[in-house]
Amino acid sequence: MFRTLSLSAFSPRIFTRAMSTAPLPMPQLPRTDEGKRICQIVKVKPERLDEYKKVHAEVWPEVLGALRKAHVVDYSIHYFAPHNLLIAHMRYIGSDFQKDMDGIKENEATRKWWQLTDGMQESFVPGATGSESGPGWWVDAEEVFRLEG
Amino acid sequence: MFRTLSLSAFSPRIFTRAMSTAPLPMPQLPRTDEGKRICQIVKVKPERLDEYKKVHAEVWPEVLGALRKAHVVDYSIHYFAPHNLLIAHMRYIGSDFQKDMDGIKENEATRKWWQLTDGMQESFVPGATGSESGPGWWVDAEEVFRLEG
Repeated sequence: MFRTLSLSAFSPRIFTRAMSTAPLPMPQLPRTDEGKRICQIVKVKPERLDEYKKVHAEVWPEVLGALRKAHVVDYSIHYFAPHNLLIAHMRYIGSDFQKDMDGIKENEATRKWWQLTDGMQESFVPGATGSESGPGWWVDAEEVFRLEG
Repeated sequence: MFRTLSLSAFSPRIFTRAMSTAPLPMPQLPRTDEGKRICQIVKVKPERLDEYKKVHAEVWPEVLGALRKAHVVDYSIHYFAPHNLLIAHMRYIGSDFQKDMDGIKENEATRKWWQLTDGMQESFVPGATGSESGPGWWVDAEEVFRLEG
């Protein structure tokens, strides 16, 4: 049903039916991505939103360092007001995801950070207890399209 | 209240209060991002989701070419089932955003693509009529955190 495709895998079949058979422009731009993309969602408690923004304006450097050490790059969080959502988007450029995630949990500052920020959030994960343990806290959103590079 | 920060702007102030004054690890990883990040949301009609996934498994190459020509890179769309959301995340690496977006609208294949996909979606933008004209179709989600590079 759903495939994640690299550009080279895109077929002109649908297009040629709909449009023409002329050569297709595909300008080459500097390649700026690599790795696996991850999109995760959690709900922010509306009454804690300002506080959430405030602490994220000065994230503890140890927390950022733990992310980098775990090969997480290009990490952003967006807020979607109509559903009080926090949407995290990151790329993982390492080779052992579980090991790297376990490494993050070993970082004391990160565990304290989670205690701080989990309290501002509600999880969509059934039975979730927090970011440090349990079945998860942020929930993955399914990738349905990717344009790489 | 809210600032978008580069790594160099992160202050250790909060951290040092909470944790320690030891040197902070910040492993250098290959820099893989540049440009402005954009996160946009639209609702997918549940009964059209399978069709939406299917056409996105074979996006018309002209549409991808128009995006690249407009300096849009690293573009993914994720689906979040609990609210029937499509979450687009991209980076813009050009220097004239409005000009590049106008350029996309001049691409005939893209206009036909929007006619196809708009019908599978509902917009959060008040008064929205479609991707081609009007006050917008996808709505921007506010950036509240960024870890670059």
